[in-house]
Amino acid sequence: MKLIISTKTGNYYYFDETKNQDFHTKEGFVKLDDILNNKKVISNTNKEFLVLEASDFDKINKFKRGPQLIQAKDLGYVVGRCRLSRKSCVLEAGGGMGVATSFFSSIVDSVTTYEIREEHLKIIRSNLDFMNCDNVELKLGDLNDEIGSYEKEKFDLLFLDMPDVEKVLEKDLKSIKNGGYIVCYVPSITQVLDITKVIEEKHDELYLEETTEIISRQWKCWGKVARPNHRKENDHTAFLVFIRKI
Amino acid sequence: MKLIISTKTGNYYYFDETKNQDFHTKEGFVKLDDILNNKKVISNTNKEFLVLEASDFDKINKFKRGPQLIQAKDLGYVVGRCRLSRKSCVLEAGGGMGVATSFFSSIVDSVTTYEIREEHLKIIRSNLDFMNCDNVELKLGDLNDEIGSYEKEKFDLLFLDMPDVEKVLEKDLKSIKNGGYIVCYVPSITQVLDITKVIEEKHDELYLEETTEIISRQWKCWGKVARPNHRKENDHTAFLVFIRKI
Amino acid sequence: MKLIISTKTGNYYYFDETKNQDFHTKEGFVKLDDILNNKKVISNTNKEFLVLEASDFDKINKFKRGPQLIQAKDLGYVVGRCRLSRKSCVLEAGGGMGVATSFFSSIVDSVTTYEIREEHLKIIRSNLDFMNCDNVELKLGDLNDEIGSYEKEKFDLLFLDMPDVEKVLEKDLKSIKNGGYIVCYVPSITQVLDITKVIEEKHDELYLEETTEIISRQWKCWGKVARPNHRKENDHTAFLVFIRKI
Amino acid sequence: MKLIISTKTGNYYYFDETKNQDFHTKEGFVKLDDILNNKKVISNTNKEFLVLEASDFDKINKFKRGPQLIQAKDLGYVVGRCRLSRKSCVLEAGGGMGVATSFFSSIVDSVTTYEIREEHLKIIRSNLDFMNCDNVELKLGDLNDEIGSYEKEKFDLLFLDMPDVEKVLEKDLKSIKNGGYIVCYVPSITQVLDITKVIEEKHDELYLEETTEIISRQWKCWGKVARPNHRKENDHTAFLVFIRKI
Repeated sequence: MKLIISTKTGNYYYFDETKNQDFHTKEGFVKLDDILNNKKVISNTNKEFLVLEASDFDKINKFKRGPQLIQAKDLGYVVGRCRLSRKSCVLEAGGGMGVATSFFSSIVDSVTTYEIREEHLKIIRSNLDFMNCDNVELKLGDLNDEIGSYEKEKFDLLFLDMPDVEKVLEKDLKSIKNGGYIVCYVPSITQVLDITKVIEEKHDELYLEETTEIISRQWKCWGKVARPNHRKENDHTAFLVFIRKI
Repeated sequence: MKLIISTKTGNYYYFDETKNQDFHTKEGFVKLDDILNNKKVISNTNKEFLVLEASDFDKINKFKRGPQLIQAKDLGYVVGRCRLSRKSCVLEAGGGMGVATSFFSSIVDSVTTYEIREEHLKIIRSNLDFMNCDNVELKLGDLNDEIGSYEKEKFDLLFLDMPDVEKVLEKDLKSIKNGGYIVCYVPSITQVLDITKVIEEKHDELYLEETTEIISRQWKCWGKVARPNHRKENDHTAFLVFIRKI
Repeated sequence: MKLIISTKTGNYYYFDETKNQDFHTKEGFVKLDDILNNKKVISNTNKEFLVLEASDFDKINKFKRGPQLIQAKDLGYVVGRCRLSRKSCVLEAGGGMGVATSFFSSIVDSVTTYEIREEHLKIIRSNLDFMNCDNVELKLGDLNDEIGSYEKEKFDLLFLDMPDVEKVLEKDLKSIKNGGYIVCYVPSITQVLDITKVIEEKHDELYLEETTEIISRQWKCWGKVARPNHRKENDHTAFLVFIRKI
Repeated sequence: MKLIISTKTGNYYYFDETKNQDFHTKEGFVKLDDILNNKKVISNTNKEFLVLEASDFDKINKFKRGPQLIQAKDLGYVVGRCRLSRKSCVLEAGGGMGVATSFFSSIVDSVTTYEIREEHLKIIRSNLDFMNCDNVELKLGDLNDEIGSYEKEKFDLLFLDMPDVEKVLEKDLKSIKNGGYIVCYVPSITQVLDITKVIEEKHDELYLEETTEIISRQWKCWGKVARPNHRKENDHTAFLVFIRKI
């Protein structure tokens, strides 16, 4: 996939060069051959475009959509804070559209993902296929019903992006490694309080290490200007609760 | 390595159980055997401790130190925003103490790291050995002198945490893949402006995609309290400049 | 003026009850008499409305508009940080639409305001009349030309919301009291740097006390939800530079 | 009172020139006459000091202390958001150390302040005397017992900086003007939720207009540096809940 940037408008276009078609946008038209052989092209309307290889980050923009996508600021912090690596084994519930799943998949050894709604599962599968993820086990169903059946100390991370996470915490969590992480992604601070109640009851098994909110500010820096970017202050997404398994 | 948490003070202790010694702290003493066989132990002074397997994140606390360590909030965003994966190839200059290097190493295919000060290089090597990183090439020297000599389109990410990053940008950057990222980690917004001047000159080769500041807020949520944690608002660290190679 | 709030949509309506007319909105119709005699009224379409006396803050919403209005978060901090009081004397340039002017006017002894564009001056005058401000001297012209002509130690605060503030700082500032404040409201950090250059030259006369950015976050707290309000994170407005006159 | 700033260390000294004494600090010694007649003085140790008239903001640093002082960022926003003016009448409970009281006093027509602890009341009285506030009625006692006894529509603002604010909200609030404000200053978001429960019950009388958190960031801008100031990111103080009286 190619990322094509209009130098005039700054618009980003994602272009599948394998479809053997020319490039058409409101800003003009460019021949496929031109795009395959140049890093800068001019359209029939005399507009200039930059041609770049799309990154995995770009490709997410082509994901089939449903609910809000988890952002790089939150996902990156989970990966950096838990220090996921190629040896890690991840269990995930609430697959979203597969953004977290595909990112975990490209880093860790294996991912097991639960999604309760069949139509969402289909979208996730389609998105994972698009990203060529081959180490993900996708499961239709409720993690609550099955988490107790996994072998002991199998997973390094349990990532929960779903309603009523506190119910999962009440289950048998022996499959999470001692010292491993349970990370809850919850929009409301009241949900954090619900989580802490379960931790208080299970304080022999769960340790609340950190509740963090990640805020990103994009800046406009060019020429004589350096200021936070209007309309790019990120809206609130969620609180991240990091729990250690004892 | 074990992470041992005092349930009374919340203090974290890092304990190397391979040294065949008992555990001694100001909060009391615990026998090695006790620690190896339990998840909760009581010291001779009747204090309770939780025993967890240390994560890679914990292990950084045992790094030999020099300059300020790059934080998970920034490092995670770089990894999430650039979507590093096990296929990625990273070039890095300004090794810090090896925190970024060891994290990249545990995720990507290979890392090449330049450090200009010999004493820093020794610390980095020691830290990388501690983390068992075996896919890092550590180079003593100035990246400016050698970046032009790498083969074309070798690297997915060039990560710069060093003074005068704009000088590197002026060099021959053919070794960075088309569509790949150059990420500059700079403390002052004036440095971002210096960077944009080079990009303006090299606008056929470099595209400024985003300048972002990542802010983390830790929260205290327990019982009847839910508020940002006093003395845990993170100080400013740096601005992250994401440049795409054309 | 009345503030009328729809309990269903949360919409705010500003209603001038002195115009002897009934209240008409898309949400329905209410008789004037009803509004004058009740705190809660029902429209012909059976919608409920709360009736409140409008505050000065509400009235700003009826201001004739031009450029972006200065926000309460910034204006409040200026007043609180400089500790304006009924004894204070304020000089202001760049009148905006009169929001700062009318607020200063309602607190301090006297305000002198410069505005260089005649059409803006007319709007400001109209807005000040609407707010019944009678202690403001409105001047058409460039403060740069006249600041040197004021008597010594007349003003407690010089408030600058205009381009090229550094040019004002280069002028004769004897009319600002020793210990008094010069506050610059500037959108870009590069303008702060321009200001510091003048201060460096005039370090016998000007002392840079603080450069601050005020960020407000609105929260949605109701029932089982407590989270930052989507789409209400405030965009960046400006940096506030607090300079003390020596 | 004079504010004396060391140009070398940036230290601020507050000096009462009416005490007829010379100025002594660790940084050296300056004669009183020197200070009274100059804006820049040199100490016996050859250190340079700037001499400024202290502002009301400076004077707060000489307040007798007890609990944490309310900050200009929060106090300013209350004043700016409620648009207090010389006509306003304020009722306040939880006097802190008199910081809010003295600021309200210097702006509005009259302030009535309740404080339940006698020792705090003494400190507040001493601080108000120091600031020459003569329009404050200080009351020893619990606002809950007396709020119902005030005449109808007397106050423009009820400002609550005390535990269990929700109990005050449950009382007879007829003394607050229709359209007037009740502002609660509460450290924890859980307290906001307690407040909303009372508002839900009294929805014919109280309207929740806004819950806001004010964050200030101080910047270091000088020479070639422009970045947020390390160790000056403000800790969390409180959430501000703005309620309109119907």
